[in-house]
Amino acid sequence: MNNFIYHNPTKLVFGKGQIARLPKLIPAGKRIMLTFGGGSVKRNGVYDQVVAALEGRDLVEFWGIEANPSVETLREAIALGKERKVDFLLAVGGGSVIDGTKLIAAGLLYDGDAWDIVLKGQAGKTVPLATVLTMSATGSEMNSGAVISRYETKEKYAFYGDYPVFSILDPETLYSLPKRQVACGLADTFVHVLEQYMTTPHQSRLMDRWAEGILHTVVEIAPKALADERDYDTMSEYMLSATLALNDMIRMGVTQDWATHMIGHELTALHGLTHGATLAIVINGTLRVLRGQKRGKLLQYGERIWGIAGGSEEERIDRTIAANEAFFRSLGLSTRLSEEGIGEETIAEIERRFTAAGDRFGEAQNVDGAMARRILEACL
Amino acid sequence: MNNFIYHNPTKLVFGKGQIARLPKLIPAGKRIMLTFGGGSVKRNGVYDQVVAALEGRDLVEFWGIEANPSVETLREAIALGKERKVDFLLAVGGGSVIDGTKLIAAGLLYDGDAWDIVLKGQAGKTVPLATVLTMSATGSEMNSGAVISRYETKEKYAFYGDYPVFSILDPETLYSLPKRQVACGLADTFVHVLEQYMTTPHQSRLMDRWAEGILHTVVEIAPKALADERDYDTMSEYMLSATLALNDMIRMGVTQDWATHMIGHELTALHGLTHGATLAIVINGTLRVLRGQKRGKLLQYGERIWGIAGGSEEERIDRTIAANEAFFRSLGLSTRLSEEGIGEETIAEIERRFTAAGDRFGEAQNVDGAMARRILEACL
Repeated sequence: MNNFIYHNPTKLVFGKGQIARLPKLIPAGKRIMLTFGGGSVKRNGVYDQVVAALEGRDLVEFWGIEANPSVETLREAIALGKERKVDFLLAVGGGSVIDGTKLIAAGLLYDGDAWDIVLKGQAGKTVPLATVLTMSATGSEMNSGAVISRYETKEKYAFYGDYPVFSILDPETLYSLPKRQVACGLADTFVHVLEQYMTTPHQSRLMDRWAEGILHTVVEIAPKALADERDYDTMSEYMLSATLALNDMIRMGVTQDWATHMIGHELTALHGLTHGATLAIVINGTLRVLRGQKRGKLLQYGERIWGIAGGSEEERIDRTIAANEAFFRSLGLSTRLSEEGIGEETIAEIERRFTAAGDRFGEAQNVDGAMARRILEACL
Repeated sequence: MNNFIYHNPTKLVFGKGQIARLPKLIPAGKRIMLTFGGGSVKRNGVYDQVVAALEGRDLVEFWGIEANPSVETLREAIALGKERKVDFLLAVGGGSVIDGTKLIAAGLLYDGDAWDIVLKGQAGKTVPLATVLTMSATGSEMNSGAVISRYETKEKYAFYGDYPVFSILDPETLYSLPKRQVACGLADTFVHVLEQYMTTPHQSRLMDRWAEGILHTVVEIAPKALADERDYDTMSEYMLSATLALNDMIRMGVTQDWATHMIGHELTALHGLTHGATLAIVINGTLRVLRGQKRGKLLQYGERIWGIAGGSEEERIDRTIAANEAFFRSLGLSTRLSEEGIGEETIAEIERRFTAAGDRFGEAQNVDGAMARRILEACL
């Protein structure tokens, strides 16, 4: 096991009716900026619950943080927040609203342009932020990471801000999600786990078990979540799985491999494809191309998650990669670039970007431009 | 899934050589009281590492916190700490030293007698405390609970203090532990998980998987940990398992059942038997007597942890309870009261205590004095 530091101070407030706790969770006397996406929280009643809970408090609203939040939009929020002297942020939405609010939290206490913070990769001082989650996928509600896009240059990068002070997770807020969003959220959750699990074997038995615990859970609940998004217990498992998949709890003492995510971000930046949908495609290419390097874990994954035990090791790996792809197809998602009309032009651009930046992603830092091309070609 | 709040702010600093980080972890200007047990940390070099790391800092030492820490001893530490105006506590030891230090942390800011805090069950203000763990078992290094004894009345009760600010877990500090302590630590870890798992089934698939993940790990590593306590990877898994077994991470949204612990505490109070050793006995009685109530989980536990699948449900439960007892025997621990010379006199006293206090422990709150008698008789 590798040395590690784990420190996640976010308070998780989980369950039915928990939005009503907001007035106790936010210190008195704060000027609170509520940040929102496009308006689904008005249709599903979450906005009304939040505003009712915070009646009498000093509120500023900012609307319009888009999927794949852009620095262009967030600059407006930062300007408004500075003007109104906001000193507490409450993100009400999914991962995009929360990620965007992490940049606002840093931008409010930074004099230059917010894009600097993204390029630096690490926020300085931040205004405290909290969240009311309405779409489970990114885990942003209980981690410090955020991914921000810059539309004018079609760039998309991650940076580290602060952990939310608290996050309210009420599974009933997921009841009105479109099926495709649930499918993408489940895919994102699953791939988050794989990026922390599909690495060198035998680093930690316990972390392997915890990662597999989330994978098992997602596999078991996925058909139910897609069939009835108003099944409270199922949506609870989905919501908790998504949060625990990326809140540092399954990465204690083990290496990670975020190559699939880094390639997926480029597909979103270039084509606007939903994050989870990019992962459902790219992960298959990653496993095919890096099957030698990931051999030990592929065998363990196949046996423990998919019950693949018989045959030669090569056959078992073949079947495991097929089972993995079949799972994403069972969510109703594409698993091939060609299904999304993506081809050589995009592959060439991603290869060019990785090469130009000198990027080398993945556990073994061997996913450079040429390797990204091979991975993308393997999921054409 | 039940509503829950999870909030564990302890920073976990895990791995080889991490004691050297102490000066960065404790804010400058603090008057630090180091608290210790009986001196094993002088023999294994941990004391030297701590003092070297904190050279030049304002230190007060308190020695002699015993196994099953007593309010009698802790009153002395509190008096010394008040006299020396201590404002930071660093517990260097195992669960007993840490538990005792949680009472010191509360007692330093309390005017009355420290036993009041234990009886109240909840500390008020506390001085910040941190830990350097040298014996893995109780999980006290990453939770807020503590169990304190009062020798003059042979009482032993739990109370809630504060979470440590940080805990340093260096598996190498476990290298010099006697085998029996490792065995008791593994037993304590295992039963902590069972107390949060062996309850009503189908509350959370994910929490079940995480609990089972720790159980699997402990079962797999136990023979190695007992054979060679200097195997770094094995001791890392043991150390991490013990911490994650009781740091709130496997109890999100699920019920708990601490009846075995409550009965075990009485055995320690009356006989001085090591905590883990009491659990290795009592858990078998609990499972035998409450097999009806715990039926669903016993079947799941048997199948997933012990691979027990064939035969009727009653047969499978029989085999599961036998496998559970065999595991504790494989640690070299007694699983029967008679092996420890404990009999009717003690059973009668525990029944009397539970009945007099009106206690009703366990998930179903049906473990009263009479039920405690049945459980103890079932492990005679």
